Amino acid sequence: MRNLFMKVTYDGTNYDGFQTQPGGNTVQDMLERAITHLTGEVVKIIASGRTDAGVHAYGQPFNFETTSLIPLERWCLALNARLPEDIVVTEAHEVPLTFHSRRGAKRKTYRYTINGNRFPDPFQRRYQFHHPVALDVKAMEQGLKPLIGTYDFTSFASRKSTKASHVRTIYEAHMEIDRSMCRPDSTDQGVIHTYITGSGFLQHMVRIIMGTLIQVGEGKRRPEQIADILAACDRAAAGPTAVAKGLALWNVSYEDAGN
Amino acid sequence: MRNLFMKVTYDGTNYDGFQTQPGGNTVQDMLERAITHLTGEVVKIIASGRTDAGVHAYGQPFNFETTSLIPLERWCLALNARLPEDIVVTEAHEVPLTFHSRRGAKRKTYRYTINGNRFPDPFQRRYQFHHPVALDVKAMEQGLKPLIGTYDFTSFASRKSTKASHVRTIYEAHMEIDRSMCRPDSTDQGVIHTYITGSGFLQHMVRIIMGTLIQVGEGKRRPEQIADILAACDRAAAGPTAVAKGLALWNVSYEDAGN
Repeated sequence: MRNLFMKVTYDGTNYDGFQTQPGGNTVQDMLERAITHLTGEVVKIIASGRTDAGVHAYGQPFNFETTSLIPLERWCLALNARLPEDIVVTEAHEVPLTFHSRRGAKRKTYRYTINGNRFPDPFQRRYQFHHPVALDVKAMEQGLKPLIGTYDFTSFASRKSTKASHVRTIYEAHMEIDRSMCRPDSTDQGVIHTYITGSGFLQHMVRIIMGTLIQVGEGKRRPEQIADILAACDRAAAGPTAVAKGLALWNVSYEDAGN
Repeated sequence: MRNLFMKVTYDGTNYDGFQTQPGGNTVQDMLERAITHLTGEVVKIIASGRTDAGVHAYGQPFNFETTSLIPLERWCLALNARLPEDIVVTEAHEVPLTFHSRRGAKRKTYRYTINGNRFPDPFQRRYQFHHPVALDVKAMEQGLKPLIGTYDFTSFASRKSTKASHVRTIYEAHMEIDRSMCRPDSTDQGVIHTYITGSGFLQHMVRIIMGTLIQVGEGKRRPEQIADILAACDRAAAGPTAVAKGLALWNVSYEDAGN
């Protein structure tokens, strides 16, 4: 028996999230079908975590056990030939049988993308939240800071969360502005990417953080209020859940893998 | 009567090209319907030129006459509200009644995009030609040079071209490599953009140039052969027509507008 560890990039627009659901239209279902088609084995893959409907991933790790003897270097091309074009496997490694993509995950980075330019970008329309009204990005950056550390993130978790503990650690968070698509002589703000790295995230956590920070950017809340919202441990204290399409699982790193 | 000049960005994936066709599924049809819906007037727009099915545009200029008194600053938002989300009007100006988007166009720039990384990018899959096998980009750049100047481009024109003259001028051409999406420790080549600026282009001209240059990059032709292909004035001398989805009309400039 081999334990194979892979990374998959997907455009989540057309799927009901990562994790298997009865309808079968999930990224996990597509991956498992492709593996079965290739190997003849029925497999259950383990991912680093789920992503919601419409959320994307640049590097979602997963692993599964197989008796297949297909050489490592063949797996990506063989699976991609059996996957729809919005799901692409980009890495395949053999790992110890004890390796578990979810339990082994040490740091996860999500990226949330806001198009702050006056007009939507038709080429990026599925991957950006368009917010043409000027945002105070400095205030948003200030609002990110109180979230760095180990806290109970109940205020920033879906009320449907069933986790026993809402304590999580955010290691790092920052914003980057890409002005390459701004029209000259315009009031375009650029494309605003927010990167948040943590030990793990509660359901909707990044999207609720972003929905709240957008209110800060709009001047509806002050950045100093973020600490109070966190302390309240009450979902009602935070802002709305930002739309799914702006969110992407950017990277997951493992103690040993170092990536 | 006013003559309005606008620029439109579109994802051409879902359209039968720019110019009106009987089926009505063209970018021009969508624009004319939106204008009629807004103003009540039946209009015929004049664009800088047509683009083929599946080809995109970052800045396609067009103009039309209208008696509408809608202020200039309202037009973009009003039209975008009546357009599908893959077509976005980004500029509106009032120009002299004599201005004509096609006749006035002085320089057109097209961009062709090749993803030279090992795996396709699911987020850019509609806007890139994926060519995972290593390309000799230096040889391709060398092959671009003999095309700069004023020549009869019959070798690089569709056999269906009905133009009286195939003489065109290419002012400038260069390639840029974007390595931002390359995976570390991979043999990824990056995303290769080719920009070609000319007085005007014959049907399929940029795509045939690119199909031929890709053969140069693959080592199937030497860059020195490009001059011979040009001199042959024979479509059969050149390479295949590269796929439409990698091509985008990047910019069109006018004598006076200077953009």
